[in-house]
Amino acid sequence: MCDLAWICVVVGLIGAGVAGYFVRYVLGQDEGPEGIKEISAAIKEGGLAFIHREYRALGLVVVVIAIVLGLLGLVTPVLGWRAAVAFVFGVLCSMSAGYAGMNMALRANGRTCVAAQKGLNQGLRVSFRGGAVMGLTVVSIGILGLAVLYFVWAPPRLSGEQFLAIIPAYGTGASLVALFARVGGGVFTKGADAGSDLVGKVEAGIPEDDPRNAAVIADNVGDNVGDVCGMGADLFESYVESVIATMCLCGVALSAGLVSEVKTAWHIPLLVMAGGIVASVIGCFLVRVGEKVEMSALLAALRRGTLSATILTALFGFLVVYFLADNLHLFWAMLAGLVAGVLMGESTNYFTSYAYKPTRQISEASAVGGGATIIRGFANGLMSTWPPVVLIVLATVVAFKFAGFYGVALAAVGMLSTLGVTLATDAYGPVADNAGGIATMAKLPPEVRERTDALDSLGNTTAATGKGFAIGAAALNSLGLILSFAMAVGIVTVSSGGGLVLPEPERMSLLDWHVIAGIILGALVPAIFCSVTMKSVGVTTAAIIEEVRRQWREIKGIMEGTARPEYGKCVDICTGTALKEMMAPSIVTIVMPIAVGIVLGIYALAGFLIGALASGFIFAITLNNAGGSWDNAKKWIEAGHFGGKGSEAHRAAVVGDTAGDPMKDTSGPSLNIMLKLMSVISLLLAPVFMVIGGGLI
Amino acid sequence: MCDLAWICVVVGLIGAGVAGYFVRYVLGQDEGPEGIKEISAAIKEGGLAFIHREYRALGLVVVVIAIVLGLLGLVTPVLGWRAAVAFVFGVLCSMSAGYAGMNMALRANGRTCVAAQKGLNQGLRVSFRGGAVMGLTVVSIGILGLAVLYFVWAPPRLSGEQFLAIIPAYGTGASLVALFARVGGGVFTKGADAGSDLVGKVEAGIPEDDPRNAAVIADNVGDNVGDVCGMGADLFESYVESVIATMCLCGVALSAGLVSEVKTAWHIPLLVMAGGIVASVIGCFLVRVGEKVEMSALLAALRRGTLSATILTALFGFLVVYFLADNLHLFWAMLAGLVAGVLMGESTNYFTSYAYKPTRQISEASAVGGGATIIRGFANGLMSTWPPVVLIVLATVVAFKFAGFYGVALAAVGMLSTLGVTLATDAYGPVADNAGGIATMAKLPPEVRERTDALDSLGNTTAATGKGFAIGAAALNSLGLILSFAMAVGIVTVSSGGGLVLPEPERMSLLDWHVIAGIILGALVPAIFCSVTMKSVGVTTAAIIEEVRRQWREIKGIMEGTARPEYGKCVDICTGTALKEMMAPSIVTIVMPIAVGIVLGIYALAGFLIGALASGFIFAITLNNAGGSWDNAKKWIEAGHFGGKGSEAHRAAVVGDTAGDPMKDTSGPSLNIMLKLMSVISLLLAPVFMVIGGGLI
Repeated sequence: MCDLAWICVVVGLIGAGVAGYFVRYVLGQDEGPEGIKEISAAIKEGGLAFIHREYRALGLVVVVIAIVLGLLGLVTPVLGWRAAVAFVFGVLCSMSAGYAGMNMALRANGRTCVAAQKGLNQGLRVSFRGGAVMGLTVVSIGILGLAVLYFVWAPPRLSGEQFLAIIPAYGTGASLVALFARVGGGVFTKGADAGSDLVGKVEAGIPEDDPRNAAVIADNVGDNVGDVCGMGADLFESYVESVIATMCLCGVALSAGLVSEVKTAWHIPLLVMAGGIVASVIGCFLVRVGEKVEMSALLAALRRGTLSATILTALFGFLVVYFLADNLHLFWAMLAGLVAGVLMGESTNYFTSYAYKPTRQISEASAVGGGATIIRGFANGLMSTWPPVVLIVLATVVAFKFAGFYGVALAAVGMLSTLGVTLATDAYGPVADNAGGIATMAKLPPEVRERTDALDSLGNTTAATGKGFAIGAAALNSLGLILSFAMAVGIVTVSSGGGLVLPEPERMSLLDWHVIAGIILGALVPAIFCSVTMKSVGVTTAAIIEEVRRQWREIKGIMEGTARPEYGKCVDICTGTALKEMMAPSIVTIVMPIAVGIVLGIYALAGFLIGALASGFIFAITLNNAGGSWDNAKKWIEAGHFGGKGSEAHRAAVVGDTAGDPMKDTSGPSLNIMLKLMSVISLLLAPVFMVIGGGLI
Repeated sequence: MCDLAWICVVVGLIGAGVAGYFVRYVLGQDEGPEGIKEISAAIKEGGLAFIHREYRALGLVVVVIAIVLGLLGLVTPVLGWRAAVAFVFGVLCSMSAGYAGMNMALRANGRTCVAAQKGLNQGLRVSFRGGAVMGLTVVSIGILGLAVLYFVWAPPRLSGEQFLAIIPAYGTGASLVALFARVGGGVFTKGADAGSDLVGKVEAGIPEDDPRNAAVIADNVGDNVGDVCGMGADLFESYVESVIATMCLCGVALSAGLVSEVKTAWHIPLLVMAGGIVASVIGCFLVRVGEKVEMSALLAALRRGTLSATILTALFGFLVVYFLADNLHLFWAMLAGLVAGVLMGESTNYFTSYAYKPTRQISEASAVGGGATIIRGFANGLMSTWPPVVLIVLATVVAFKFAGFYGVALAAVGMLSTLGVTLATDAYGPVADNAGGIATMAKLPPEVRERTDALDSLGNTTAATGKGFAIGAAALNSLGLILSFAMAVGIVTVSSGGGLVLPEPERMSLLDWHVIAGIILGALVPAIFCSVTMKSVGVTTAAIIEEVRRQWREIKGIMEGTARPEYGKCVDICTGTALKEMMAPSIVTIVMPIAVGIVLGIYALAGFLIGALASGFIFAITLNNAGGSWDNAKKWIEAGHFGGKGSEAHRAAVVGDTAGDPMKDTSGPSLNIMLKLMSVISLLLAPVFMVIGGGLI
């Protein structure tokens, strides 16, 4: 029988093919008149300039890490050059997925603007297909990359043990790119956004996206580098790491009698993902509306796409488990993750959309003043943590009960299996947002802006759902990686009956001081990480404000419209600051787990990772949802409630929105990466920690 | 030989005697003219009315819990009527300490105002001695209560096992009072404060503490019920529970060969506390300044008091360990806690005082706008978590290395041993704050207000230090209680060689799903708790604003000064709302650990408590220090920087201050109680959990 993993190759190519079809479709659309083309070109130029500089900075770090991994081969033979190659391969896969997706988004924005002139439906189609390229590219490259690793290094080429030691390097590569993309992109996008708003709308009193503001292009570039490229890299990482964690835990599935051979335990996550890709492709094609178009119809169209994909994926997953596994336990584990992911997205939507009470109450509180807005929104963010936490705990418990550690990792696979379509609904938002910016800058008739605003507002809903999903996926995935780490360093092993065996139970005890110290220190790291990233946004904002003021001062005629501002300068400044500011949090994330592992030992490191997961998960949801609800509370007021635009309540709501921006678009999402990266690095370095053993003290 | 615990009785009586001396001193001061007396009487009336209603509401809960504890005697014989009595006794001790301290503060405020007319030094003396009554009463009643329990129920009266099962009931009683006092008082004080500011300063444009504002008395009452009574009850709880946790862990000390008999392991924490009381009394008398008075001299005077007490306590602690224990290991454990406590206070001061960079940077960011103020302050709060976390981890590790679980609990005793004087420096602040309010309301000459403001500002510094200390004490103490809980339910026992033995190591493993679920759920609870308490403040604020507006509308002549507002109504409203709003978070705190213990079992409960500790500790520091630094950033601007009062920057800073108030004075400090109460309830119910065993699922 031919190796089942070939199915993944076929499906990956199908996914890539459909992505290619969407590319052709979008590129075949009208680029519009010179005015639109010119602005679109400026945004594209800025976006590509950022990504090139980011990738260059990344290159240096990649080379250093690859050399270290290669040299570690001297200490522990399972690492070495193969790990270095797998790592670089992970970096390249993630980079190309991000590059392709963002490149497409940059080309779709102007075309969406033109399409929106014809009607809302046409606007939706172009922008959604632009976003779908990102979604499908991520999953296709993800699965193809995994398949390549599998065919090159899985037994009989290498031993199973060696294979499992190498594949985390692929995940680490993806993590590193994600870290740079999320933190760097997040700092860029919010620095530019806040800077442009403060100096333009607040200080000079000119409208948003006004071409006289030198920061507008940077602002639009930010949407692409943060929301498209950053989100894509984040989910690419989750996607491949969930499979890697599941593969690494194959021993559990085998000894618990869930599967009868190791290869099956590797095939199952790959094939569930393959089923998800097919389902996603079908889902993408189901996103269409009739000619009579309303907002509710648009939303229903997107929902139809994701929901069908979810049901189909469950079906495919069932078939995979039914034919490959010895019983249906694994199906329930996978389903737990899939369902939890969907519900988590809905919960985020409830707590952040102005269609519901929590956000409207923030608008109401804004009538009292800015302080009340902040307190109410923050309280809402804190409260919104309970559904995701309970859902993740339930999914973990169900998965654990049915299939142990392996089940937990497989739940994460289930959650991420529909990524192709969920990411598409997510990435289309920034395209629509950009189209709106271009419409204003190119002075198109107001109804075009109205249509792109409608698309953008719909995009905000799907983005909220997508973000909740991304956080949940990161948490469950991180848990899977932690369990893989624990198995890899041998602090827990499995007996032939499938039960867990602890070689040194006293040291793995929750009550050992190493573990307690680890948990408390772990809980600290997300706080520090958030603090640093929030400050970075402030630094970038200040630099942008300074630059726009300088241009107004020094270049005569900008305000009269007779001279063009130097847009590129602002993009340059954002790029430079973002890349500089990205360094400190990145180093913390990479160094902390290694330091804890070396100084306090592997038992403390396990505690550290779980502590970071527990507090990081809470922080990520709080920051994301507080930020989202402040944003929408402002929009609710702008829609004419509590005094409407320009009222005292509106001013208070703007304070909330400004404060929330770096929380929801920089610090919160970056936490996802932090959690996963710390876990996967620990897993990758497991062979090294085994040599070092229990720590220095 | 006479039982060494008699020393505690003697020292407790000495402490009470000195407190009595201070009472006489303060009451002997001039009460001032009719105007001051009248206002002071109104504040006193409001404060006492609140405390009476709070104690009445509390009474009902106490009766219910006492009956439950009594009935639990049917399930497990070690609880029963004795536990119920100990619980009620704990309630009564905490209530009387709080009552005495607050009563004194209420009488000292007017007298401080009068004394400040004579000079700054005299103002300091009266207010400090007013606060010292609180400090000394708390520690004296605390140690006397523990001594009574010891003499009534310690062996040979009851078995050691029974004695240790009963004393946590005393701590639970103290915890319950603290919960009501902190949450209820916190909601009262910030609701009144924000309401009075918003309707007075912002809406009507009249100054702070203007007698035409019906909420001013409620605002001043709030300082007493929140900052004096709430803080006192919080630290009373920490004080007695640290001793209880240490006593419960006597088995560890015995089998590790640190002491040669059980009684010694009980005497050591009691005698360390006794030494601390003597040191505190000496420290209180060292707080005096010469005639030439400057702020720095005032601060130096307070520092001299606390520092001398710290050094003396270390000395007494050394003597206790030297004479009673078999080696000096216990001294190092105690010292680790003592030093960590002092440094934690200093760290809070660094991050919240405008003498240092972090707070000044928030002032600077305010020039950009309210959003920047919020982000910068929040980032500062998050960053400020690292020194306390690292200090607690270091203290835990040192204590653990030297003396195991017993050492960790003893470190908490060490930290709290100087409470008599640290609480005195803390409780004097609200007295000075009240004196300032009275000075304005009684229309005294401006230099009086200037002097009370100077005292108040100094009080803010010591309050910040005190708060950092209270959080650290709560965390370390909670850890000690968790370890006691683990021993009490038998999920960990000690071998004769002093090592830890885990009867069911797989279940106690950090990687068991019960434990993981417990940790993640535990990390969630502080978030929910903060959310609920923050919202409660908002509810109270809205009610106050409504009432003040109503009075201005319906009572003619208030604004012209010809009619008196109905101050009592506002106090009533705050009291009613605070007591109502207090219920939800209280129930969550009491029910959650019980529910987790019953449903998921004792192993999950251990994880739950540690998860809550890890995330609650981070949240408490973040909220406390973010709030403190926003407050001081505003003051720094008011001192004439970045545009001074009335500037755009000032308006932005006010937003931060308003948002920070409920964080730093309601939610943050209430978390202390939550952590301790959940731990002590688990410890108290240990015999019940042992009957239930491993949980329902």
